[in-house]
Amino acid sequence: MAEENVSINSTRRLPTRAEDFSEWYNQLVVKADLADYAPVRGCMVVKPYGWALWENITSWLDAEFKKTGHVNAAFPTLIPLSFFEKEKEHVEGFAPELAVVTHGGGVELEEKLVVRPTSETIIGYMYSKWVKSWRDLPILIVQWGSVLRWELRTKLFLRTAEFYWHEGHTAHASKEEAIEETYRILDIYEKIYIEEAAIPVIKGVKSESERFAGAQMTTSVEAMMQDMRALQAGTSHYFGTNFAKAFDIQFLDKNNSLQYCETTSWAISSRMIGALIMVHGDDQGLMLPPRLAPIQAVIVPIFKNDEEKTKVMEVADKIFMELKAAGIRLKMDDRDNVSSGFKFNDWEMRGVPLRIEIGPKDVEKRSVALARRDVPGRGGKSFVPQTNLAAAVSGMLAEIQSSMLKRATEFRDANIHDPKDYEEFKKVVADGWAFSWWCGRPECEAKVKEDTKATTRNMPLDQPKGDTLGKCIVCGEKADRKIYFARAY
Amino acid sequence: MAEENVSINSTRRLPTRAEDFSEWYNQLVVKADLADYAPVRGCMVVKPYGWALWENITSWLDAEFKKTGHVNAAFPTLIPLSFFEKEKEHVEGFAPELAVVTHGGGVELEEKLVVRPTSETIIGYMYSKWVKSWRDLPILIVQWGSVLRWELRTKLFLRTAEFYWHEGHTAHASKEEAIEETYRILDIYEKIYIEEAAIPVIKGVKSESERFAGAQMTTSVEAMMQDMRALQAGTSHYFGTNFAKAFDIQFLDKNNSLQYCETTSWAISSRMIGALIMVHGDDQGLMLPPRLAPIQAVIVPIFKNDEEKTKVMEVADKIFMELKAAGIRLKMDDRDNVSSGFKFNDWEMRGVPLRIEIGPKDVEKRSVALARRDVPGRGGKSFVPQTNLAAAVSGMLAEIQSSMLKRATEFRDANIHDPKDYEEFKKVVADGWAFSWWCGRPECEAKVKEDTKATTRNMPLDQPKGDTLGKCIVCGEKADRKIYFARAY
Repeated sequence: MAEENVSINSTRRLPTRAEDFSEWYNQLVVKADLADYAPVRGCMVVKPYGWALWENITSWLDAEFKKTGHVNAAFPTLIPLSFFEKEKEHVEGFAPELAVVTHGGGVELEEKLVVRPTSETIIGYMYSKWVKSWRDLPILIVQWGSVLRWELRTKLFLRTAEFYWHEGHTAHASKEEAIEETYRILDIYEKIYIEEAAIPVIKGVKSESERFAGAQMTTSVEAMMQDMRALQAGTSHYFGTNFAKAFDIQFLDKNNSLQYCETTSWAISSRMIGALIMVHGDDQGLMLPPRLAPIQAVIVPIFKNDEEKTKVMEVADKIFMELKAAGIRLKMDDRDNVSSGFKFNDWEMRGVPLRIEIGPKDVEKRSVALARRDVPGRGGKSFVPQTNLAAAVSGMLAEIQSSMLKRATEFRDANIHDPKDYEEFKKVVADGWAFSWWCGRPECEAKVKEDTKATTRNMPLDQPKGDTLGKCIVCGEKADRKIYFARAY
Repeated sequence: MAEENVSINSTRRLPTRAEDFSEWYNQLVVKADLADYAPVRGCMVVKPYGWALWENITSWLDAEFKKTGHVNAAFPTLIPLSFFEKEKEHVEGFAPELAVVTHGGGVELEEKLVVRPTSETIIGYMYSKWVKSWRDLPILIVQWGSVLRWELRTKLFLRTAEFYWHEGHTAHASKEEAIEETYRILDIYEKIYIEEAAIPVIKGVKSESERFAGAQMTTSVEAMMQDMRALQAGTSHYFGTNFAKAFDIQFLDKNNSLQYCETTSWAISSRMIGALIMVHGDDQGLMLPPRLAPIQAVIVPIFKNDEEKTKVMEVADKIFMELKAAGIRLKMDDRDNVSSGFKFNDWEMRGVPLRIEIGPKDVEKRSVALARRDVPGRGGKSFVPQTNLAAAVSGMLAEIQSSMLKRATEFRDANIHDPKDYEEFKKVVADGWAFSWWCGRPECEAKVKEDTKATTRNMPLDQPKGDTLGKCIVCGEKADRKIYFARAY
């Protein structure tokens, strides 16, 4: 009975990734205690462990945005349906996904409201009230919260009807500034993925057909999952004056002449947690990069009887206090109703980067055993002295962080191909990415999609240099850019 | 032209509080740049300055909740309408205020969804899935976000259709623990109001008729505004097993016997910002307590020509760096398109606790002028040396904080009366609070409400001691408790 009461889920094995990647993912999310299915179609409940992970992501981003001059604000969850009709492409993109409020306070509403799927419209409306002069610019506002899109096929974190995100919305006096902002944010997104999440994303510009509804340019960071599929992991959009014209955001410039603002918007959502799972997880469960892990290390005291317990706990408690004081996010697992083996599996499932084992022998030898989550079995185990343990643990966490990035980068690079012709192209994108010349025509993208289900991901900002231009991998015509093709989530 | 472009609102005078308290409030919210009216019925936009204030409130609370073992999680914004029907009193309380989603993804929904007005129901549903054994208890979850109630008469921050809050939801194995939790949270609420917001709230238990829909006990902190009306400033509810029975939240206790959980919920909302305005504001605008102010001090350099500017800015920049390094939340107002007088008014309107003026004479004398927001005119102005300025500023901020609390406490105490009979009672509650004996019968509360519009606020936990019981101020019958009566927001 007792064992069943605690974390029974995590004692059950996952299907292996090789057996069924999709089912491995679905079960891992629940068994690692990240999220649960809500009793509302397509929605999820983010559980405390998953939310703590999200808070580590959001607090890093929030600090970075504030450093670069951004401020937070809050706009309504409900938006008049009519607002969406003001920007033609925008409404076409979002109309099929809207949840509509028709009744309020017991009566039918004259004006229907939608639960926001994104907030360009209502924020644009407010900016038109706030902006009068060039002195009011730029406006650099971020909103943290959730949005709702009526998705038909959902998957926890990756695609849920409601999801969590930030949405940045900025207004500028010039095109140059707006484009600079678009890229500034893209760089922040690249940074959090690479440095914090240990996910080697590729940043670049989306093709026209893959743009956000209403954008003049969409940039993205794209990540490769372990099943080789691509995940659009963050986007930063430049709108030109599209939304400014739709919502009349005008300002008097220094010459007293009325101008439309140039605007941007950008977002990373809770699907980032999906990326963390699919890039780093293994058949034992989640594997979190130390810099984002809610629990960086877990202490598991090991003892067989009360006498051993007294001895071991004395040392374990002391070490706990030391590591805590050193700023390590730490958990003591002193449950007495489950076995040590159960605990090991449990924390592996939850992806805790480092396990610290302390048994009676360790007490005698004044050492502890460290077990790395990223290196399974004996290879990941080492014994270190109890003295200066905080430094050893911090060092090990840094080493895990960089190893995880190295492994993910090697995996990514090994699976990006440069096929010599369209026949080879079709083969490689079945099970990897292609980085190929493209003529820029939507017809070639469409053909690829039909033939292979792969789509264009993005075009790196640094394109191959030199006089020799390439030939489109699809039609063979002259091409001046290389682009990533992959099947995507 | 130039002046008009910047903060024109704050140059216009507010109506005085004596002239029209309500209109003073409405204009202050907008002119102090805290919030704006949204183009959605009854909703507000919280502007960056208002949101920064809210972030200072929420980060303090979040840290305090975490210290006491609480964790954050996220539940859906939309809740099936049917969930509300499971707890009889709850649905009666909330049905008239619901916003209903009837269509999603272009089709009519089989099951109607409501935008959450509060989340006891959906969280209760999830807890019933998560709780199996006494080992799973307590569950101590907080959700941060917004909720929506279709209010008919709205007022920015005080009563808006959508408002921001946290909602804590806890489940316990025993009544004792749940009640202890209810009071633990009430203490945290009292602490943030008194220590951080400088608002001397009164904590106590609400009467039965003033309880939250579905609660067995509602406790509250109540604050007195400058117009003597009461504001319910935070609530902590004990539900007994009401929601556990409605949502089947059961656990096996240590004797393997199935029991219902005891649950609580509690919240402070963005109306706390309304309280800050109405307790501390004056005819010049907002007055923020230093511990919560987004900007604790503003530096205003004063100069008439370029030569003076060079001299003054050199010192001003140096002081800015010093104070920033000392952790003071600081702003440099070096705008060159508005006058110093304009700047003074502007920051007074925004309630910045301390203004630091540096002019050419100050540079010579190696001093600065400090102007306290809480003491208008010359009385609040002092000259201090530039050396050790950070210590002087920190000291002054602490002094402002305690002065504000002292003033608000004196005001509160001067306006709480102990009327000798019902005739006097009726007079005092027209323009103050009464702290009177009450027999406990709803009939007497109803009579007071009809005669005076005053309602019972709460009963302090520490009741007058001794053998002598009092007589109900309304009916004259025996009474064993004293309760606050006041007209409320």
